[in-house]
Amino acid sequence: MTTAEGVARREGGRSALVLAAVRSAVTELTAERGAAQLTVPAIAERANVSASSIYRRWGDLPTLLAEVATYRLDPDRPLPDTGDLRSDLLGWARELVEHLGRPSNAAMLRAGAALAGDGESDCLRNRRAEATRLVERVAAASSGPVPDVPEVIDHVVAPIVYRVIFDPGSLDDAVAERLVDGLLAALPAGD
Amino acid sequence: MTTAEGVARREGGRSALVLAAVRSAVTELTAERGAAQLTVPAIAERANVSASSIYRRWGDLPTLLAEVATYRLDPDRPLPDTGDLRSDLLGWARELVEHLGRPSNAAMLRAGAALAGDGESDCLRNRRAEATRLVERVAAASSGPVPDVPEVIDHVVAPIVYRVIFDPGSLDDAVAERLVDGLLAALPAGD
Repeated sequence: MTTAEGVARREGGRSALVLAAVRSAVTELTAERGAAQLTVPAIAERANVSASSIYRRWGDLPTLLAEVATYRLDPDRPLPDTGDLRSDLLGWARELVEHLGRPSNAAMLRAGAALAGDGESDCLRNRRAEATRLVERVAAASSGPVPDVPEVIDHVVAPIVYRVIFDPGSLDDAVAERLVDGLLAALPAGD
Repeated sequence: MTTAEGVARREGGRSALVLAAVRSAVTELTAERGAAQLTVPAIAERANVSASSIYRRWGDLPTLLAEVATYRLDPDRPLPDTGDLRSDLLGWARELVEHLGRPSNAAMLRAGAALAGDGESDCLRNRRAEATRLVERVAAASSGPVPDVPEVIDHVVAPIVYRVIFDPGSLDDAVAERLVDGLLAALPAGD
């Protein structure tokens, strides 16, 4: 999604219109038929663009679905910056719960999961980059204990994504807070 | 999988043969074509059974795939019972890493993820039952702090499944130990 966003910003105009039309088509068709029924030709027809322009920009269907499921989580967006590690992590975790928990995004995340497996997915890479920014900023400003990035992924991102995919009914507002507090409670005291 | 195993045990003979033939067919076809290409008619042909007998026993393809990916993790199997919470959790977490990390099982887990979403999946329900048994046994024998079941799912099961699906290259022997130690470190001291 970084790439598609970057391309849109550089190219503007026509390219940005294609991007918006394809994203809308994917969202609409997912709501109408479910993500498992999507095909590139059907998306192209709904968006009124050529299938080849979709393949050229996104490469394949799973990459497109993952981009549409997460593009509103622009990896360049401002992250919470309260000066407090817990508040920053909590704001970020709540944003993930709220965004990924929407039924259309959850459906696309499931479809993306089916086709994942070769290397790290874009979605994970962007969440990892965000966790790195959050954690490094706090580490630079504080002498207190700070989680490392794999800990943030394992104990905050993974449980949210797992619930979105396998147990969506269990995802509520309290989850983000419980996960962040669990992560912080595991840090060595005064380290 | 509880149901299918139970049926096989009660019926024995012919039913057990069908069960074994279908599981072998799914495993072989996944290795040959990938889980995304599986269909019930193709599985029925390979197993030399009727498609209707597959639908009757499993209901649908995602349920069958989830069952084959996890049936060796029989929910009635003996769990580690060393008398020590950390050792028991670690033995169990290593078993999940080892089992779900196998490429054929990972592929089936991804295919199952694509079709999850209505209620809790069988695979999760069985892991939850195991976590409950592990935790309750320790709680009954000890006055020390013990994690609750949702914590075990969030901080041990979810990160393993997340890595299996989205970042399989990151799954190694050290992961199980790090996750269990993170879970235990988050417990309130002497509570």
